[in-house]
Amino acid sequence: MNEFELIARLTQSLPTNPSVVVGPGDDCAVLALGAPDQWLLFKTDAAVEGVHFTRDTPPEKIGHKALARCLSDIAAMAGTPTVALVTIALPQKFDVKFIETIYAGLTALAQKHGVAIAGGETTTNPDRILISIALLGIVPRGKAVLRSGAKAGDAIFVTGELGGSLAGKHLEFEPRLAEARWLAENFPVHAMIDLSDGLAGDLRHILKASRVGAELLKSAIPISRAAKSLAKGNTPTRPPFVAALTDGEDFELLFAVPGRHAVKLLDAWKRQFPGLRLSCIGKITADEGITIRDKTRVQRLTSDGYVHFA
Amino acid sequence: MNEFELIARLTQSLPTNPSVVVGPGDDCAVLALGAPDQWLLFKTDAAVEGVHFTRDTPPEKIGHKALARCLSDIAAMAGTPTVALVTIALPQKFDVKFIETIYAGLTALAQKHGVAIAGGETTTNPDRILISIALLGIVPRGKAVLRSGAKAGDAIFVTGELGGSLAGKHLEFEPRLAEARWLAENFPVHAMIDLSDGLAGDLRHILKASRVGAELLKSAIPISRAAKSLAKGNTPTRPPFVAALTDGEDFELLFAVPGRHAVKLLDAWKRQFPGLRLSCIGKITADEGITIRDKTRVQRLTSDGYVHFA
Repeated sequence: MNEFELIARLTQSLPTNPSVVVGPGDDCAVLALGAPDQWLLFKTDAAVEGVHFTRDTPPEKIGHKALARCLSDIAAMAGTPTVALVTIALPQKFDVKFIETIYAGLTALAQKHGVAIAGGETTTNPDRILISIALLGIVPRGKAVLRSGAKAGDAIFVTGELGGSLAGKHLEFEPRLAEARWLAENFPVHAMIDLSDGLAGDLRHILKASRVGAELLKSAIPISRAAKSLAKGNTPTRPPFVAALTDGEDFELLFAVPGRHAVKLLDAWKRQFPGLRLSCIGKITADEGITIRDKTRVQRLTSDGYVHFA
Repeated sequence: MNEFELIARLTQSLPTNPSVVVGPGDDCAVLALGAPDQWLLFKTDAAVEGVHFTRDTPPEKIGHKALARCLSDIAAMAGTPTVALVTIALPQKFDVKFIETIYAGLTALAQKHGVAIAGGETTTNPDRILISIALLGIVPRGKAVLRSGAKAGDAIFVTGELGGSLAGKHLEFEPRLAEARWLAENFPVHAMIDLSDGLAGDLRHILKASRVGAELLKSAIPISRAAKSLAKGNTPTRPPFVAALTDGEDFELLFAVPGRHAVKLLDAWKRQFPGLRLSCIGKITADEGITIRDKTRVQRLTSDGYVHFA
């Protein structure tokens, strides 16, 4: 049983109550908790030594990544992060300086985005460091962008460049908070997600929630320099295009906007965010599944996330 | 460096913002996030295999305990819990039935208190199961009971009976939510905390936050049957009174109310909660530190949490 199957099983009969607007299965939970004009976004995310970072990772980058992952989920709903709690589970013997530097990385990123760190806890995890962030954000009532609103005919966009994140970006990425809010304020964004599992996997999350399919244009998918360099290495590796589809941890925004807005959006984006590439990579289709079009043919993306090239 | 010293160091310069009413150092963070008449309570707490439970612990009790610990912190501020997120970190090979039963324990307790489980995440912790709960609660604006309001002359109360929790109670305890809300609605509760570190340690948290001291009456401290039985065992063990002071994981309420309300409170409590003992165990003093009075003398409780009996 993989992670997604386990989650599906665990979340099939969880208790709810009237404060829950959106429960399990989107980037954040969405809550109506007393404020007349806003919703709360609620998210937790953990970073584990040996999984998301190593003992050799510079500690300020561990802190940065732990918080940035959560901020990226708030971005994916076009929200504004406000307050975090930090849980850090440590072996009995810990290097105080190392832990303080993790906190320095967390704090620097929190300050940059006006996020308060209002507490949390330290506990024991004998074998490895684990950092779990619980984050609250706000979004105007009714304005959270979900995964479930994509419609046939929408254009699919992605920010930045994809693939090869493990070469360094996964520790240093900037969550696309300002970009996501600007998008939601200026365009009818039907669905949005942040890329953590990889373009193919995360697009599937949108498609499944929206009950639609997608056709991607191979030449339009922005491939990072890191993915290209990795492909040139000596050891046999995947083609850069496959890396861009499946590597994960890109933490870019993937979203769907009605096709008629596509050109206007690309123009406006270039003026608003000249330093960040925006690519229209395909369109939402009524037929389910993902197909990829290149110059000569259309191929289906198989369910394990990889394209099988003939 | 112990846990409290580390926390003091990590929390000395954390970023804040205007939504934070109470930051690190109380049972929960208190937030003003848009709702005109209520505050939010925000709390995280983790339960770790080998620390808070073992592989032999019945899994539904693991789930119960993980959530109950957090609920108890909401109770300590006289709040009402509303929405939880559940993070579960698992070894690669996990027993699905075991995890589902942990969730069943969590869910049963959540339903009992009207708490929604609105998501969370699963992640990898290769060596042991770790469950972290992030919990939101609400409290009427201005009505959160903090640790910092105890005043000289207040009577000190504790619910239930103390000590020996590890014999079983720590896995089955009921968070004192209804009791705490009733207290705050009916009496001027100056300060409150839930007992997780043990009476001596948690009383110190109140005293430090309130800059006062306490005199306890030895004969008034309610000692659990479990603490008494453990003291009768064959191996040398601590006297039951010391167990009641220091064992931890009691998850009862410890609170301070002006002395003139003490008798009225004890009477009203007996009618309201006939099944749960309430004990007046001493008084708040202007002099700092904790002293313990018995028939013949007054002794000072040393800073390591143990009484040194002559």
